[in-house]
Amino acid sequence: MILLRYGPVGAEKPGMLDGNGNLRDLSNHVRDITGAVLDDAQLATLRAIDPENLPLVEGTPRLGPWVGSIGKFMCIGLNYSDNAEESGMPIPKHPILFFKANSAIVGPNDDVVMPRGSTQTDWELELGVVIGKAAKYVDAKDALDHVAGYCIVNDVSERHFQNNLTGQWTKGKSCDTYGPTGPWLVTRDEVPDPQNLSMHLDVNGTRMQTGNTGTMIFSVAEIIEHLSHLFTLHPGDVISTGTPPGVAMGMKPAPVYLKKGDLMELHIDGLGTQRQKVDQDA
Amino acid sequence: MILLRYGPVGAEKPGMLDGNGNLRDLSNHVRDITGAVLDDAQLATLRAIDPENLPLVEGTPRLGPWVGSIGKFMCIGLNYSDNAEESGMPIPKHPILFFKANSAIVGPNDDVVMPRGSTQTDWELELGVVIGKAAKYVDAKDALDHVAGYCIVNDVSERHFQNNLTGQWTKGKSCDTYGPTGPWLVTRDEVPDPQNLSMHLDVNGTRMQTGNTGTMIFSVAEIIEHLSHLFTLHPGDVISTGTPPGVAMGMKPAPVYLKKGDLMELHIDGLGTQRQKVDQDA
Repeated sequence: MILLRYGPVGAEKPGMLDGNGNLRDLSNHVRDITGAVLDDAQLATLRAIDPENLPLVEGTPRLGPWVGSIGKFMCIGLNYSDNAEESGMPIPKHPILFFKANSAIVGPNDDVVMPRGSTQTDWELELGVVIGKAAKYVDAKDALDHVAGYCIVNDVSERHFQNNLTGQWTKGKSCDTYGPTGPWLVTRDEVPDPQNLSMHLDVNGTRMQTGNTGTMIFSVAEIIEHLSHLFTLHPGDVISTGTPPGVAMGMKPAPVYLKKGDLMELHIDGLGTQRQKVDQDA
Repeated sequence: MILLRYGPVGAEKPGMLDGNGNLRDLSNHVRDITGAVLDDAQLATLRAIDPENLPLVEGTPRLGPWVGSIGKFMCIGLNYSDNAEESGMPIPKHPILFFKANSAIVGPNDDVVMPRGSTQTDWELELGVVIGKAAKYVDAKDALDHVAGYCIVNDVSERHFQNNLTGQWTKGKSCDTYGPTGPWLVTRDEVPDPQNLSMHLDVNGTRMQTGNTGTMIFSVAEIIEHLSHLFTLHPGDVISTGTPPGVAMGMKPAPVYLKKGDLMELHIDGLGTQRQKVDQDA
């Protein structure tokens, strides 16, 4: 099942894709797509609806971030062995965790707007994991039972803010619009193996990142186990699980960062495509 | 004006303290105390109410976190010159930023529950700054216009999680219950100088932290300026502004961390008192 939110910023409606890829309105069944509708029982209720009986949404409305409100927007750093190699960083002993500000979240095709003076904005294509059932002290073997589904996240990163403004990556990860999320939430029954998903990211039509979740250092299940021993993961929380090789920061001889007018396109097999234009605050 | 929330977890009602320190119910005027009621106009409307005309709340109900929903829970690290000296750390060039998980927030007198296996839980008494009006690209001279008010935050910290679980302080800052917030929100008109507030923290009746916001390295206004150039600060966002000397981690010859049964008491002049018992998950 594919869930989404569509419509103008702040007034998004819940929706669902039918078998033909058409957008159907879910407003008569749920008020919004939030953590509150992501447990197995609620998802089963939605799954029982025949999409053909839902109102067809005409045209091509804006897609919002698939989640209507979010508790924690967690990100795992340096989680692909081929990316760690590329960047010459040691393999971490535990998943590296930082948070992105919730206020950075935007729809999958909204503009990414660089803050004033930003010159080192970079892309990071990532698999997003959406929690459906609260998780505390969970073993890896049971961890995927707590997942509602998966989505794409672009963990857009300002490298100067991240690396040169005194400690803690969060500063470079939390700029407004630096968290495109979507295009939709694909429930876990349609993603049989989250550790075998191919993905790629293009900038202005040139392939920059190519990867597969099979090279993750810490699997989705291991990440959930680790985090759930630190704090409770709540329904609607999102974990962005790290990025494969090919970010601007790693380019030789020198990084070529994003600039106004650039176009990013992100794809993960089975999870759809994001497409963002880059703009900048005057 | 002093705003607060009271009642059982998840069912808190909005309230106000009257001139005699009695709790009055605000439910007939606002649904909840959230960022949406913190702009100057809304606060003026609430200020115009005579508390004597509000229903008196009998007994001593639990106090909830003063904010009903929160966007970003930001913390500034190493922001007191006397604390930086004590810990032998260099004075940071910019405010050090990390996020606490929103799911860590609890009421001012709720138990702090250490996660299984935790042996290095520490206290951090801090001045919390509550945003009332959105702030983006703000100058320090105008920054306090964006503040709705102030509160106490205990930035409870698990030092092993923070320092030994591979990078980024967030892990030690985000355990469930590690963000006591309150007892209430004191609006900025009642805090003439946020850079001259005395504060102290006792553990089991022994004074551990004594400080004054006058020794902050970055003032509240400078912190808001810096952060607002990274991202938008939204109404209801909270910035916890760092802790003065006297945390367990800095003890010589060795830290004495919190254990089950300990009692923390936190006070900032004009902002009230917090009181938490320490418990631990089995």
